Amino acid sequence: MSAKFKRLPKHIGIIPDGNRRWAQQHGLAKEDGYRHGIAPGFALYELCLELGIPEVTFYGFTQDNTKRPAAQKQAFQQACVDAVQTLAKRDAALLVIGNHESPLFPKELLPYTKRQTFGRGLIKINFLVNYGWKWDLSFALNSHDLPDSQLHERIASRDISRLDLIIRWGGRRRLSGFLPVQSIYADFYVVDDYWPDFMPDHFFSALKWYENQDITLGG
Amino acid sequence: MSAKFKRLPKHIGIIPDGNRRWAQQHGLAKEDGYRHGIAPGFALYELCLELGIPEVTFYGFTQDNTKRPAAQKQAFQQACVDAVQTLAKRDAALLVIGNHESPLFPKELLPYTKRQTFGRGLIKINFLVNYGWKWDLSFALNSHDLPDSQLHERIASRDISRLDLIIRWGGRRRLSGFLPVQSIYADFYVVDDYWPDFMPDHFFSALKWYENQDITLGG
Repeated sequence: MSAKFKRLPKHIGIIPDGNRRWAQQHGLAKEDGYRHGIAPGFALYELCLELGIPEVTFYGFTQDNTKRPAAQKQAFQQACVDAVQTLAKRDAALLVIGNHESPLFPKELLPYTKRQTFGRGLIKINFLVNYGWKWDLSFALNSHDLPDSQLHERIASRDISRLDLIIRWGGRRRLSGFLPVQSIYADFYVVDDYWPDFMPDHFFSALKWYENQDITLGG
Repeated sequence: MSAKFKRLPKHIGIIPDGNRRWAQQHGLAKEDGYRHGIAPGFALYELCLELGIPEVTFYGFTQDNTKRPAAQKQAFQQACVDAVQTLAKRDAALLVIGNHESPLFPKELLPYTKRQTFGRGLIKINFLVNYGWKWDLSFALNSHDLPDSQLHERIASRDISRLDLIIRWGGRRRLSGFLPVQSIYADFYVVDDYWPDFMPDHFFSALKWYENQDITLGG
Protein backbone atom coordinates (compact mmCIF):
# COMPACT_ATOMS: atom_id res chain seq x y z
CA MET A 1 0.00 0.00 0.00
CA SER A 2 2.90 2.37 0.70
CA ALA A 3 3.69 2.21 -3.03
CA LYS A 4 0.81 4.68 -3.41
CA PHE A 5 2.99 7.41 -1.88
CA LYS A 6 6.29 8.92 -3.02
CA ARG A 7 7.29 9.99 0.46
CA LEU A 8 5.72 9.22 3.82
CA PRO A 9 6.05 11.03 7.15
CA LYS A 10 8.09 9.24 9.79
CA HIS A 11 6.03 10.60 12.65
CA ILE A 12 2.37 11.65 12.50
CA GLY A 13 0.47 13.53 15.21
CA ILE A 14 -3.28 12.97 15.49
CA ILE A 15 -5.64 15.52 17.06
CA PRO A 16 -8.95 13.63 17.19
CA ASP A 17 -11.26 16.59 17.75
CA GLY A 18 -15.01 16.93 17.34
CA ASN A 19 -16.26 14.06 19.54
CA ARG A 20 -18.63 16.28 21.49
CA ARG A 21 -19.95 18.12 18.46
CA TRP A 22 -20.51 14.76 16.75
CA ALA A 23 -22.49 13.52 19.77
CA GLN A 24 -24.69 16.61 19.78
CA GLN A 25 -25.28 16.26 16.06
CA HIS A 26 -26.51 12.71 16.73
CA GLY A 27 -28.78 13.69 19.62
CA LEU A 28 -26.46 12.19 22.24
CA ALA A 29 -25.02 13.68 25.41
CA LYS A 30 -21.66 15.36 24.74
CA GLU A 31 -19.72 12.78 26.76
CA ASP A 32 -21.08 9.95 24.60
CA GLY A 33 -18.92 11.14 21.74
CA TYR A 34 -15.66 9.87 23.16
CA ARG A 35 -16.42 6.16 22.99
CA HIS A 36 -17.24 6.62 19.32
CA GLY A 37 -13.67 7.82 18.89
CA ILE A 38 -12.00 4.52 19.81
CA ALA A 39 -12.78 2.52 16.66
CA PRO A 40 -11.47 5.31 14.37
CA GLY A 41 -8.20 5.35 16.31
CA PHE A 42 -7.82 1.66 15.84
CA ALA A 43 -8.61 1.91 12.11
CA LEU A 44 -5.95 4.61 11.77
CA TYR A 45 -3.43 2.49 13.67
CA GLU A 46 -4.04 -0.37 11.21
CA LEU A 47 -3.47 1.91 8.22
CA CYS A 48 -0.22 3.21 9.71
CA LEU A 49 0.94 -0.34 10.36
CA GLU A 50 0.20 -1.34 6.75
CA LEU A 51 2.01 1.73 5.41
CA GLY A 52 5.00 1.21 7.67
CA ILE A 53 4.73 4.60 9.43
CA PRO A 54 7.30 4.32 12.26
CA GLU A 55 5.68 6.56 14.90
CA VAL A 56 2.23 7.99 15.68
CA THR A 57 1.20 10.24 18.57
CA PHE A 58 -2.45 10.58 19.66
CA TYR A 59 -3.71 13.59 21.58
CA GLY A 60 -5.67 11.87 24.34
CA PHE A 61 -6.64 14.53 26.85
CA THR A 62 -4.96 17.54 28.38
CA GLN A 63 -4.83 19.21 31.74
CA ASP A 64 -6.83 22.03 30.12
CA ASN A 65 -9.56 19.48 29.23
CA THR A 66 -9.92 18.35 32.83
CA LYS A 67 -11.75 21.58 33.66
CA ARG A 68 -14.76 20.11 31.83
CA PRO A 69 -17.82 18.55 33.56
CA ALA A 70 -17.22 15.28 35.46
CA ALA A 71 -19.22 13.11 33.02
CA GLN A 72 -17.04 14.25 30.11
CA LYS A 73 -13.87 13.83 32.13
CA GLN A 74 -14.73 10.25 33.04
CA ALA A 75 -15.69 9.51 29.43
CA PHE A 76 -12.42 10.71 27.90
CA GLN A 77 -10.35 9.08 30.63
CA GLN A 78 -12.10 5.77 29.93
CA ALA A 79 -11.68 6.16 26.17
CA CYS A 80 -7.92 6.58 26.65
CA VAL A 81 -7.70 3.52 28.88
CA ASP A 82 -9.68 1.44 26.37
CA ALA A 83 -7.57 2.64 23.44
CA VAL A 84 -4.24 1.88 25.12
CA GLN A 85 -5.36 -1.50 26.45
CA THR A 86 -6.66 -2.48 23.01
CA LEU A 87 -3.32 -1.65 21.37
CA ALA A 88 -1.45 -3.55 24.09
CA LYS A 89 -2.99 -6.70 22.60
CA ARG A 90 -1.45 -5.89 19.21
CA ASP A 91 1.88 -4.88 17.71
CA ALA A 92 3.04 -1.63 19.26
CA ALA A 93 5.76 0.00 21.34
CA LEU A 94 3.47 2.01 23.61
CA LEU A 95 4.30 5.12 25.60
CA VAL A 96 1.87 7.25 27.62
CA ILE A 97 3.06 10.79 28.39
CA GLY A 98 1.37 13.16 30.82
CA ASN A 99 1.36 14.22 34.44
CA HIS A 100 0.90 10.82 36.07
CA GLU A 101 1.44 12.16 39.57
CA SER A 102 -2.03 13.69 39.42
CA PRO A 103 -5.25 11.83 40.42
CA LEU A 104 -6.60 12.82 36.97
CA PHE A 105 -4.21 10.35 35.35
CA PRO A 106 -5.94 6.94 35.00
CA LYS A 107 -4.13 4.41 37.22
CA GLU A 108 -4.61 1.68 34.60
CA LEU A 109 -2.15 3.54 32.37
CA LEU A 110 0.71 3.82 34.87
CA PRO A 111 2.51 0.74 33.45
CA TYR A 112 2.81 2.53 30.10
CA THR A 113 4.59 5.66 31.35
CA LYS A 114 7.78 3.87 30.35
CA ARG A 115 7.69 2.52 26.79
CA GLN A 116 6.38 -1.07 26.69
CA THR A 117 6.74 -3.27 23.63
CA PHE A 118 3.91 -5.60 22.62
CA GLY A 119 3.86 -8.20 19.86
CA ARG A 120 6.63 -7.44 17.41
CA GLY A 121 6.63 -3.76 18.44
CA LEU A 122 6.37 -2.75 14.78
CA ILE A 123 5.26 0.82 15.43
CA LYS A 124 5.82 3.40 18.15
CA ILE A 125 2.52 4.69 19.47
CA ASN A 126 2.48 7.59 21.92
CA PHE A 127 -0.59 8.75 23.82
CA LEU A 128 -0.78 12.10 25.53
CA VAL A 129 -2.84 11.55 28.67
CA ASN A 130 -3.36 14.33 31.22
CA TYR A 131 -0.75 16.14 29.17
CA GLY A 132 -0.10 19.85 29.56
CA TRP A 133 2.25 22.00 27.53
CA LYS A 134 3.22 24.01 30.64
CA TRP A 135 3.86 20.79 32.52
CA ASP A 136 5.93 19.44 29.61
CA LEU A 137 8.12 22.53 29.24
CA SER A 138 8.47 23.35 32.93
CA PHE A 139 9.79 19.85 33.53
CA ALA A 140 13.02 21.08 31.91
CA LEU A 141 13.65 23.49 34.77
CA ASN A 142 14.09 20.55 37.14
CA SER A 143 15.95 18.12 34.87
CA HIS A 144 19.15 18.58 36.81
CA ASP A 145 20.43 15.22 35.60
CA LEU A 146 20.92 16.74 32.10
CA PRO A 147 23.02 19.81 32.92
CA ASP A 148 24.59 20.55 29.54
CA SER A 149 21.53 20.00 27.40
CA GLN A 150 19.33 22.56 25.68
CA LEU A 151 15.79 23.00 26.83
CA HIS A 152 14.16 20.83 24.20
CA GLU A 153 16.33 17.94 25.35
CA ARG A 154 15.09 18.29 28.93
CA ILE A 155 11.32 18.47 28.55
CA ALA A 156 9.01 15.76 29.90
CA SER A 157 8.15 14.53 26.39
CA ARG A 158 11.74 14.26 25.19
CA ASP A 159 11.29 10.59 24.24
CA ILE A 160 8.79 11.66 21.56
CA SER A 161 10.53 12.61 18.30
CA ARG A 162 9.95 15.56 15.98
CA LEU A 163 6.60 15.50 14.17
CA ASP A 164 6.50 15.60 10.37
CA LEU A 165 2.75 15.83 9.89
CA ILE A 166 -0.08 16.74 12.24
CA ILE A 167 -3.64 15.91 11.23
CA ARG A 168 -6.50 17.52 13.12
CA TRP A 169 -10.11 16.45 12.73
CA GLY A 170 -13.07 18.71 13.54
CA GLY A 171 -12.14 21.77 11.48
CA ARG A 172 -10.17 23.84 13.96
CA ARG A 173 -6.88 25.22 12.75
CA ARG A 174 -4.84 25.37 15.91
CA LEU A 175 -2.51 23.18 17.91
CA SER A 176 -4.18 23.62 21.34
CA GLY A 177 -0.99 22.83 23.20
CA PHE A 178 -0.08 19.67 21.25
CA LEU A 179 3.65 19.02 21.85
CA PRO A 180 4.89 22.56 21.12
CA VAL A 181 8.53 21.53 20.71
CA GLN A 182 7.92 18.54 18.45
CA SER A 183 5.40 20.54 16.36
CA ILE A 184 7.87 23.30 15.42
CA TYR A 185 8.43 22.19 11.80
CA ALA A 186 5.38 19.96 11.35
CA ASP A 187 3.07 20.39 8.37
CA PHE A 188 -0.47 20.88 9.60
CA TYR A 189 -3.46 19.34 7.83
CA VAL A 190 -7.05 19.94 8.92
CA VAL A 191 -10.01 17.65 8.21
CA ASP A 192 -13.37 19.37 8.62
CA ASP A 193 -15.25 16.18 9.54
CA TYR A 194 -15.56 15.22 13.19
CA TRP A 195 -13.25 12.49 14.46
CA PRO A 196 -15.97 9.82 14.99
CA ASP A 197 -16.72 10.21 11.25
CA PHE A 198 -13.13 9.19 10.42
CA MET A 199 -12.68 7.70 6.96
CA PRO A 200 -9.47 6.26 5.48
CA ASP A 201 -9.75 8.82 2.69
CA HIS A 202 -9.20 11.65 5.18
CA PHE A 203 -5.89 10.08 6.05
CA PHE A 204 -4.89 9.35 2.45
CA SER A 205 -5.70 12.93 1.44
CA ALA A 206 -3.45 14.21 4.21
CA LEU A 207 -0.64 11.91 3.06
CA LYS A 208 -1.11 12.94 -0.58
CA TRP A 209 -0.91 16.59 0.45
CA TYR A 210 2.12 15.92 2.63
CA GLU A 211 4.14 14.32 -0.14
CA ASN A 212 4.11 17.63 -2.03
CA GLN A 213 5.36 19.72 0.90
CA ASP A 214 9.02 20.62 0.90
CA ILE A 215 11.02 19.88 4.04
CA THR A 216 13.27 22.79 4.97
CA LEU A 217 13.40 22.66 8.79
CA GLY A 218 13.47 26.45 8.63
CA GLY A 219 16.61 26.59 6.45
CA MET B 1 -13.54 50.25 9.71
CA SER B 2 -13.55 47.95 12.75
CA ALA B 3 -17.36 48.03 12.58
CA LYS B 4 -16.97 45.50 9.76
CA PHE B 5 -15.97 42.85 12.31
CA LYS B 6 -17.87 41.39 15.26
CA ARG B 7 -14.72 40.41 17.09
CA LEU B 8 -11.08 41.21 16.39
CA PRO B 9 -7.93 39.46 17.57
CA LYS B 10 -5.88 41.34 20.16
CA HIS B 11 -2.58 40.01 18.88
CA ILE B 12 -1.82 38.89 15.33
CA GLY B 13 1.30 37.05 14.17
CA ILE B 14 2.49 37.55 10.60
CA ILE B 15 4.63 35.01 8.74
CA PRO B 16 5.53 36.85 5.53
CA ASP B 17 6.69 33.85 3.50
CA GLY B 18 7.23 33.44 -0.24
CA ASN B 19 9.61 36.34 -0.97
CA ARG B 20 12.13 34.12 -2.76
CA ARG B 21 9.54 32.20 -4.74
CA TRP B 22 7.97 35.52 -5.76
CA ALA B 23 11.36 36.79 -6.96
CA GLN B 24 11.96 33.67 -9.05
CA GLN B 25 8.48 33.94 -10.53
CA HIS B 26 9.37 37.48 -11.62
CA GLY B 27 12.74 36.53 -13.11
CA LEU B 28 14.68 38.11 -10.25
CA ALA B 29 17.43 36.71 -8.05
CA LYS B 30 15.99 35.07 -4.93
CA GLU B 31 17.44 37.72 -2.61
CA ASP B 32 15.64 40.48 -4.49
CA GLY B 33 12.34 39.27 -3.08
CA TYR B 34 12.92 40.62 0.40
CA ARG B 35 12.87 44.31 -0.46
CA HIS B 36 9.52 43.77 -2.13
CA GLY B 37 8.25 42.61 1.25
CA ILE B 38 8.67 45.96 3.02
CA ALA B 39 5.78 47.88 1.47
CA PRO B 40 3.30 45.07 2.23
CA GLY B 41 4.37 45.10 5.87
CA PHE B 42 3.75 48.81 6.05
CA ALA B 43 0.34 48.45 4.38
CA LEU B 44 -0.60 45.79 6.92
CA TYR B 45 0.58 47.99 9.79
CA GLU B 46 -1.70 50.79 8.55
CA LEU B 47 -4.69 48.46 8.41
CA CYS B 48 -4.02 47.24 11.95
CA LEU B 49 -3.74 50.81 13.18
CA GLU B 50 -7.07 51.73 11.55
CA LEU B 51 -8.76 48.66 13.03
CA GLY B 52 -7.32 49.27 16.48
CA ILE B 53 -5.49 45.93 16.73
CA PRO B 54 -3.38 46.30 19.90
CA GLU B 55 -0.39 44.08 19.01
CA VAL B 56 1.23 42.62 15.88
CA THR B 57 4.33 40.41 15.62
CA PHE B 58 6.27 40.04 12.38
CA TYR B 59 8.50 37.04 11.68
CA GLY B 60 11.64 38.79 10.43
CA PHE B 61 14.35 36.18 10.14
CA THR B 62 15.46 33.21 12.21
CA GLN B 63 18.71 31.61 13.20
CA ASP B 64 17.67 28.73 10.90
CA ASN B 65 17.43 31.22 7.99
CA THR B 66 21.00 32.43 8.51
CA LYS B 67 22.29 29.16 7.00
CA ARG B 68 21.24 30.55 3.60
CA PRO B 69 23.66 32.10 1.03
CA ALA B 70 25.28 35.41 2.01
CA ALA B 71 23.38 37.50 -0.57
CA GLN B 72 20.06 36.34 0.85
CA LYS B 73 21.22 36.84 4.41
CA GLN B 74 22.26 40.45 3.71
CA ALA B 75 18.99 41.09 1.90
CA PHE B 76 16.71 39.92 4.72
CA GLN B 77 18.84 41.63 7.36
CA GLN B 78 18.55 44.90 5.42
CA ALA B 79 14.80 44.45 4.92
CA CYS B 80 14.34 44.09 8.69
CA VAL B 81 16.40 47.20 9.39
CA ASP B 82 14.42 49.19 6.82
CA ALA B 83 11.08 47.97 8.16
CA VAL B 84 11.88 48.81 11.79
CA GLN B 85 13.38 52.20 10.95
CA THR B 86 10.35 53.11 8.85
CA LEU B 87 7.97 52.29 11.69
CA ALA B 88 10.10 54.28 14.14
CA LYS B 89 8.98 57.37 12.21
CA ARG B 90 5.34 56.52 12.88
CA ASP B 91 3.09 55.52 15.79
CA ALA B 92 4.34 52.33 17.35
CA ALA B 93 5.74 50.79 20.52
CA LEU B 94 8.52 48.79 18.90
CA LEU B 95 10.30 45.72 20.25
CA VAL B 96 12.89 43.60 18.43
CA ILE B 97 13.40 40.09 19.85
CA GLY B 98 16.22 37.75 18.86
CA ASN B 99 19.73 36.76 19.76
CA HIS B 100 21.38 40.17 19.65
CA GLU B 101 24.65 38.90 21.05
CA SER B 102 25.39 37.33 17.66
CA PRO B 103 27.10 39.15 14.76
CA LEU B 104 24.11 38.09 12.62
CA PHE B 105 21.93 40.54 14.50
CA PRO B 106 21.96 43.92 12.66
CA LYS B 107 23.63 46.53 14.90
CA GLU B 108 21.17 49.21 13.74
CA LEU B 109 18.44 47.34 15.62
CA LEU B 110 20.16 47.15 19.01
CA PRO B 111 18.30 50.23 20.35
CA TYR B 112 15.01 48.38 19.86
CA THR B 113 15.82 45.31 21.95
CA LYS B 114 14.04 47.12 24.75
CA ARG B 115 10.59 48.40 23.79
CA GLN B 116 10.74 51.96 22.40
CA THR B 117 7.66 54.10 21.98
CA PHE B 118 7.33 56.37 18.94
CA GLY B 119 4.62 58.88 18.17
CA ARG B 120 1.57 58.15 20.27
CA GLY B 121 2.64 54.48 20.58
CA LEU B 122 -0.82 53.39 19.47
CA ILE B 123 0.14 49.83 18.62
CA LYS B 124 2.68 47.31 19.87
CA ILE B 125 4.80 45.99 17.02
CA ASN B 126 7.22 43.15 17.64
CA PHE B 127 9.84 41.99 15.16
CA LEU B 128 11.60 38.65 15.45
CA VAL B 129 15.13 39.24 14.21
CA ASN B 130 17.77 36.52 14.38
CA TYR B 131 15.17 34.70 16.45
CA GLY B 132 15.45 31.00 17.26
CA TRP B 133 12.96 28.84 19.10
CA LYS B 134 15.76 26.92 20.83
CA TRP B 135 17.37 30.19 21.85
CA ASP B 136 14.02 31.52 23.12
CA LEU B 137 13.16 28.46 25.20
CA SER B 138 16.67 27.71 26.45
CA PHE B 139 16.86 31.24 27.81
CA ALA B 140 14.52 30.04 30.56
CA LEU B 141 17.17 27.71 31.94
CA ASN B 142 19.32 30.68 32.88
CA SER B 143 16.63 33.10 34.09
CA HIS B 144 17.75 32.74 37.67
CA ASP B 145 16.19 36.07 38.55
CA LEU B 146 12.71 34.50 38.22
CA PRO B 147 13.02 31.47 40.52
CA ASP B 148 9.36 30.67 41.22
CA SER B 149 8.06 31.13 37.70
CA GLN B 150 6.97 28.50 35.20
CA LEU B 151 8.97 28.02 32.05
CA HIS B 152 6.77 30.13 29.77
CA GLU B 153 7.31 33.07 32.11
CA ARG B 154 11.09 32.78 31.81
CA ILE B 155 11.65 32.55 28.04
CA ALA B 156 13.49 35.24 26.09
CA SER B 157 10.27 36.40 24.37
CA ARG B 158 8.23 36.68 27.55
CA ASP B 159 7.35 40.33 26.81
CA ILE B 160 5.40 39.16 23.76
CA SER B 161 1.83 38.19 24.65
CA ARG B 162 -0.24 35.18 23.60
CA LEU B 163 -1.17 35.16 19.91
CA ASP B 164 -4.83 34.97 18.88
CA LEU B 165 -4.36 34.67 15.13
CA ILE B 166 -1.39 33.77 12.98
CA ILE B 167 -1.50 34.52 9.25
CA ARG B 168 1.06 32.90 6.99
CA TRP B 169 1.55 33.90 3.37
CA GLY B 170 3.08 31.61 0.74
CA GLY B 171 0.91 28.52 1.20
CA ARG B 172 2.86 26.56 3.77
CA ARG B 173 0.90 25.21 6.67
CA ARG B 174 3.47 25.15 9.43
CA LEU B 175 4.81 27.42 12.15
CA SER B 176 8.54 27.02 11.37
CA GLY B 177 9.56 27.89 14.91
CA PHE B 178 7.40 31.02 15.24
CA LEU B 179 7.05 31.74 18.99
CA PRO B 180 6.10 28.21 20.08
CA VAL B 181 4.79 29.28 23.48
CA GLN B 182 2.70 32.22 22.29
CA SER B 183 1.32 30.14 19.38
CA ILE B 184 -0.17 27.40 21.59
CA TYR B 185 -3.82 28.45 21.24
CA ALA B 186 -3.55 30.62 18.12
CA ASP B 187 -5.85 30.10 15.15
CA PHE B 188 -3.78 29.57 12.04
CA TYR B 189 -4.78 31.03 8.67
CA VAL B 190 -2.84 30.39 5.47
CA VAL B 191 -2.84 32.63 2.37
CA ASP B 192 -1.60 30.85 -0.75
CA ASP B 193 -0.29 34.03 -2.42
CA TYR B 194 3.30 35.07 -1.82
CA TRP B 195 3.93 37.86 0.67
CA PRO B 196 5.08 40.50 -1.90
CA ASP B 197 1.63 40.02 -3.53
CA PHE B 198 -0.07 41.08 -0.27
CA MET B 199 -3.57 42.50 -0.70
CA PRO B 200 -5.81 43.96 2.01
CA ASP B 201 -8.40 41.34 1.11
CA HIS B 202 -6.07 38.57 2.31
CA PHE B 203 -6.06 40.20 5.69
CA PHE B 204 -9.80 40.89 5.77
CA SER B 205 -10.53 37.27 4.81
CA ALA B 206 -8.38 36.08 7.70
CA LEU B 207 -10.22 38.41 10.10
CA LYS B 208 -13.63 37.28 8.77
CA TRP B 209 -12.60 33.66 9.28
CA TYR B 210 -11.26 34.43 12.74
CA GLU B 211 -14.46 36.00 14.00
CA ASN B 212 -16.22 32.66 13.56
CA GLN B 213 -13.67 30.63 15.54
CA ASP B 214 -14.54 29.80 19.11
CA ILE B 215 -12.00 30.64 21.81
CA THR B 216 -11.61 27.78 24.27
CA LEU B 217 -7.95 27.98 25.33
CA GLY B 218 -8.04 24.20 25.43
CA GLY B 219 -10.92 24.06 27.95
